[in-house]
Amino acid sequence: MIAIHPLTGMPEINAGDDLATLLREGLEAPGLWPVQANDVLVVTQKILSKAEGRMVDLDEVEPSPEALALAETTRKDARLVELVLRESSAVVRAVPHVLITRHRLGHVMANSGIDRSNIGPGGSERALLLPIDPDRSAAGLSRALAGESGIAPAVVISDSFGRPWRHGVVGVAIGAAGLPALVDRRGEQDRDGRRLEVTQIALADQIATAAALATGEGAEGIPAVLIRGLPLPDGDAPAAALVRPLQEDLFR
Amino acid sequence: MIAIHPLTGMPEINAGDDLATLLREGLEAPGLWPVQANDVLVVTQKILSKAEGRMVDLDEVEPSPEALALAETTRKDARLVELVLRESSAVVRAVPHVLITRHRLGHVMANSGIDRSNIGPGGSERALLLPIDPDRSAAGLSRALAGESGIAPAVVISDSFGRPWRHGVVGVAIGAAGLPALVDRRGEQDRDGRRLEVTQIALADQIATAAALATGEGAEGIPAVLIRGLPLPDGDAPAAALVRPLQEDLFR
Repeated sequence: MIAIHPLTGMPEINAGDDLATLLREGLEAPGLWPVQANDVLVVTQKILSKAEGRMVDLDEVEPSPEALALAETTRKDARLVELVLRESSAVVRAVPHVLITRHRLGHVMANSGIDRSNIGPGGSERALLLPIDPDRSAAGLSRALAGESGIAPAVVISDSFGRPWRHGVVGVAIGAAGLPALVDRRGEQDRDGRRLEVTQIALADQIATAAALATGEGAEGIPAVLIRGLPLPDGDAPAAALVRPLQEDLFR
Repeated sequence: MIAIHPLTGMPEINAGDDLATLLREGLEAPGLWPVQANDVLVVTQKILSKAEGRMVDLDEVEPSPEALALAETTRKDARLVELVLRESSAVVRAVPHVLITRHRLGHVMANSGIDRSNIGPGGSERALLLPIDPDRSAAGLSRALAGESGIAPAVVISDSFGRPWRHGVVGVAIGAAGLPALVDRRGEQDRDGRRLEVTQIALADQIATAAALATGEGAEGIPAVLIRGLPLPDGDAPAAALVRPLQEDLFR
């Protein structure tokens, strides 16, 4: 049985907070500490970004000519569009109300993952960028959360995104450590001895999505989730391994 | 806490099997019967298709001229391509080794979801099509699995698919009943009283992906999963509600 435990009772996170300590306390309170083998801690992108101080005051953003033009096309706030452009390497689609970009980390998502909701008291004129290097942060959190036994949890930094042909959002991993974010099963055999035709499994994305069931994706504000009882394959590959290279992209 | 229980110990499924009875036995053996409120039973597309007799002998398939041409482009078996075309309303992308279509039910996926692995003893010359009407089948299974208390489980028929900009597969719902497959949270407020900018939540897709963590996507052959402890929103919308209409598709 796989168990998904939302970490309720964690405080609001602010810039400069020691996230590892707060997460440890978040695990101790409901009796989930110490970490067990195969534990995966899913940390929402939002609290990592806040702790890193990735909040930007929109009043301090000067839109470039490119941002102004794109703001007209998409009918979005030009200051927000400027931030989106700064955080991306390419615009994938820009139509009224929709701006899809390739984030500097490679992830294709709306608005370079920049968020204006669930920010915290202080006004609507702020935007939260994605973390600087979520793979590296995942590795750091994993190490910091190793208990006395030396067992460190795998860590996934999660966000949510839409899909081109389906309504609604699902979870996605933008950072990962301590597990293979992408599992390669090609060449294995099925139960009848035939070679499996596909499959690479986006394990970290699946984990992020399972965690999203417990965080509810919105108003409840649950910042992290522990998944226990999932046998993890050997290997350690970051979330960057999930990003399809540009030259393989059939939908640019 | 949300619990994900794989139903191990279920027999191999064959055409004509009474799936509801086999699933009930699959729940009884590990003590998961009777069904509780908010239970979601995730049934893999494969066993539903098998029970419906959706297996096709490739030797009986005559490729059309269109299939022959597409087989040359994609370097795939022309008989398989013929089946893919019969099960689709449009070809989205066709390049060497990749054939992405819009399935007749609307789902955009590789090869119209047709599968040649994990089929069962009898040879490699068979292919398994998707079920005829998985939303309707989900509703039928839900009703059939209502216990004496009258509580019926929500049911999700799951498959897996790749994504355009990310490696690896995740779960997807092709059928759903007893829950809102798509949850609309637009207009709600976040914890600071600000309006949530997005979000529609692809709940049934998230559930299918969480279940995939327990089925392992391949060689183990686990046919169904019970998810217990997930508070389900009110409402009942089928998996068809997840499909983005053609006129909103920015990536055809």
